[in-house]
Amino acid sequence: MSKIYQDLSKLLPSEFVSISQGDLEVHRIDKWHAAADPEVVVFAQSTEQVAAVLRYANEHEVPVYTRGAGVGYVGGCVPVNGGIALSVAQMNDILEVNTGDGVAVVQPGVITGHLQEAARTKGWYYPPDPASLKECSIGGNIATNAGGPRCLKYGVTKQYVLGLEVVTATGEIMRVGGRCHKNKTGFDLTTLMCGSEGMLGVVTEATVRIIPHPETRAMLGASFVDFTGAAAAVQAILDAGILPSALEITDAFTLAAARDYLGEDSLPPGDAYLMVEIDGRLSSVKNELEGLTKLLNELGVLRINEASDEAACEEIWQLRRDFSYSLKHTGLTKLNEDIVVPRSKLVELVNFARQLQKDTGIPVACFGHAGDGNIHTNLMVEDYSDPVIKKRADAAVDKLFTWVLEHDGAITGEHGVGLAKKPWIKQALGPVSFAMHKQIKQAMDPKGILNPGKFLD
Amino acid sequence: MSKIYQDLSKLLPSEFVSISQGDLEVHRIDKWHAAADPEVVVFAQSTEQVAAVLRYANEHEVPVYTRGAGVGYVGGCVPVNGGIALSVAQMNDILEVNTGDGVAVVQPGVITGHLQEAARTKGWYYPPDPASLKECSIGGNIATNAGGPRCLKYGVTKQYVLGLEVVTATGEIMRVGGRCHKNKTGFDLTTLMCGSEGMLGVVTEATVRIIPHPETRAMLGASFVDFTGAAAAVQAILDAGILPSALEITDAFTLAAARDYLGEDSLPPGDAYLMVEIDGRLSSVKNELEGLTKLLNELGVLRINEASDEAACEEIWQLRRDFSYSLKHTGLTKLNEDIVVPRSKLVELVNFARQLQKDTGIPVACFGHAGDGNIHTNLMVEDYSDPVIKKRADAAVDKLFTWVLEHDGAITGEHGVGLAKKPWIKQALGPVSFAMHKQIKQAMDPKGILNPGKFLD
Repeated sequence: MSKIYQDLSKLLPSEFVSISQGDLEVHRIDKWHAAADPEVVVFAQSTEQVAAVLRYANEHEVPVYTRGAGVGYVGGCVPVNGGIALSVAQMNDILEVNTGDGVAVVQPGVITGHLQEAARTKGWYYPPDPASLKECSIGGNIATNAGGPRCLKYGVTKQYVLGLEVVTATGEIMRVGGRCHKNKTGFDLTTLMCGSEGMLGVVTEATVRIIPHPETRAMLGASFVDFTGAAAAVQAILDAGILPSALEITDAFTLAAARDYLGEDSLPPGDAYLMVEIDGRLSSVKNELEGLTKLLNELGVLRINEASDEAACEEIWQLRRDFSYSLKHTGLTKLNEDIVVPRSKLVELVNFARQLQKDTGIPVACFGHAGDGNIHTNLMVEDYSDPVIKKRADAAVDKLFTWVLEHDGAITGEHGVGLAKKPWIKQALGPVSFAMHKQIKQAMDPKGILNPGKFLD
Repeated sequence: MSKIYQDLSKLLPSEFVSISQGDLEVHRIDKWHAAADPEVVVFAQSTEQVAAVLRYANEHEVPVYTRGAGVGYVGGCVPVNGGIALSVAQMNDILEVNTGDGVAVVQPGVITGHLQEAARTKGWYYPPDPASLKECSIGGNIATNAGGPRCLKYGVTKQYVLGLEVVTATGEIMRVGGRCHKNKTGFDLTTLMCGSEGMLGVVTEATVRIIPHPETRAMLGASFVDFTGAAAAVQAILDAGILPSALEITDAFTLAAARDYLGEDSLPPGDAYLMVEIDGRLSSVKNELEGLTKLLNELGVLRINEASDEAACEEIWQLRRDFSYSLKHTGLTKLNEDIVVPRSKLVELVNFARQLQKDTGIPVACFGHAGDGNIHTNLMVEDYSDPVIKKRADAAVDKLFTWVLEHDGAITGEHGVGLAKKPWIKQALGPVSFAMHKQIKQAMDPKGILNPGKFLD
């Protein structure tokens, strides 16, 4: 029996420390393909337990891999160097939803969707909406600075985190920020923790901002002859002074897969599809919907599906989710790269994707958050465990990322770096920023125990 | 002649290096009262010049005090340890306003109002609106993470900064973030720079997000019998699902000063005044205005001034600006503390301010951003240079800050710490966070040359 297990079983109630095969297996992988066994799994129940684990780990230089719901897409929490998988999934209480202050206080294991529901019940709104919101947790959202379709209008996770309780690498309990909506007290360590991927500390409590819930929403699904037309519509909508709550685009490959999966009749015509959601006061939304319809007609849209009630909106969002399922239904493995380009380069990106498909023989499906240029670019490969196919796929991904960086883009918009984007991080950051990252990491985690083996190692 | 001056005159074209009495005097102070002479003033013209100055300063351990337009309110740029006052005011080009990408690229010396106008000309919007926007610069806005009335709906400066070029303390040129609207590449050093008060690097270029400009705006000025009624209205408006673009509150003392300055007839009745601005599509705003009027009437408002066109809105904003002038007109020195409380504590804060006035004999005027609890609490003192009065005023400020911290508030919402809030920063951050601040500072500025003598020293 491992010494770490024995030691931790003395530090914590032993039922929260596990080396069962089942627990090790669950904690060796996220939604990406890389996997590695931790030596021991800890199910933390409190901030004090997290602090005890970190003090121990720091003293004995044991790697600590913090994990929320484990639905990351880049292998960010995979315990590549063994050590402790520190699960905060059971710290999942919503401690407070206070509309007077416009805040909610949550533990890191709270499922994002649950927080949204708790705010919604009181007529208030927590906007960040990653696709996995029914299963992902706030701790993971903070670690990756998660986004989602509505972040176009409402901003990503970091724009809602007001304060954090963080256990530092040396096991001290640090409070940063607070419950005020504005705060310029010192450096912005609260935001520094957002997107730090478990490498700078362990979040044990978060105070997030909530806002009044918009009265209603409505959607348009607009079919276009081609992607260029849909991308032009994205810009025309924004230029008309309309900031939709979501603006999602889908390319021909994805639509073809969806037709194959759902049947030709369930899908709109055309080789590109745009989903526009607007929200606000009832009368405003009605009026804005009319303006949008007029604008889209002027732009030569093929067909518009209008969704003016909740059920109809959900149908359009279901179609959006079905795009993912349709791609899975192809039987191919989806390498989902959440790259971002400056918005004016949407068409260039899709043209590049078409060329990449031609050059490599690997189908490429593009869909996602057109409004902020964050297009999920999915390389559809046959058997990624086959070394020959893997090599070809990796070379294609490399071409994609190289192109993205050459075009002022970002290699990740909302999933994080983790293991998946590690090979490109130095190039993406540049040498000065990379060195600065290492200096900050060294300052905050002197022995390098937090999530080692990831993008700075 | 000083050695630093001689050295710098060799490194840079000598016309950009000054020890003239006039230049030293301008650069010894901001809008706060503390002052100290720099040894030399540098008017940087380029990133390369900034880098050359920092390499020199780092090698010779010379303090560097970066300065934008110099309109800070907390003595943040005052060169307390002498050395170099590094002005970036002449690096003031708007390099690009690109609506296709939804970004503007600016040098740090660009006046915030000029950026807003450049975006507005193209129908786009840079929302952060500090009161001093006609004279403050983007570099200073970034250094203090500046806010303003519209930040209630639109967020503060950091929520618009997408990418930065930063010269590090050792004189290297670092690029962080970029021109994408989403970016999870590495740690969020871009936001870490926002609000870092010249202590972690020198910003030499910023890429900021711009958004479609709202079609129109409208305002209501609402008079209430007392502050409690106005504060209740703030919460009722938000609870009704309305997120105004500004929600400003004014207390009885400020109104009395304004009546004295502008004449009784120019001012609304009552002991509290609420300004509500809404923006959006024309028809939406019209409709929302009606809803707001109905709601305010139900809440027992004394009088409502409706402003449904641009000129009328500007009149209400002019009244807001006149509040500041009215306080100045009292002949007293205004110690403006930009404290923040959780929104539900607005009434408690004003009651505390009344009690503080009673206990200390120092008049206290409260007005500001009610929607986010950021109330400018102005202690009106006679002659702050009189040591007796200063001591009494400082004791009153200490009571205020102590109360704020005991009530989950923040000692600064948008002005920064600088020298003004330095005595309270350790208490505000707590010992673990304060130590972490020092570690990060050490990592990013190993010799401590950037803005020494401020809140970490």
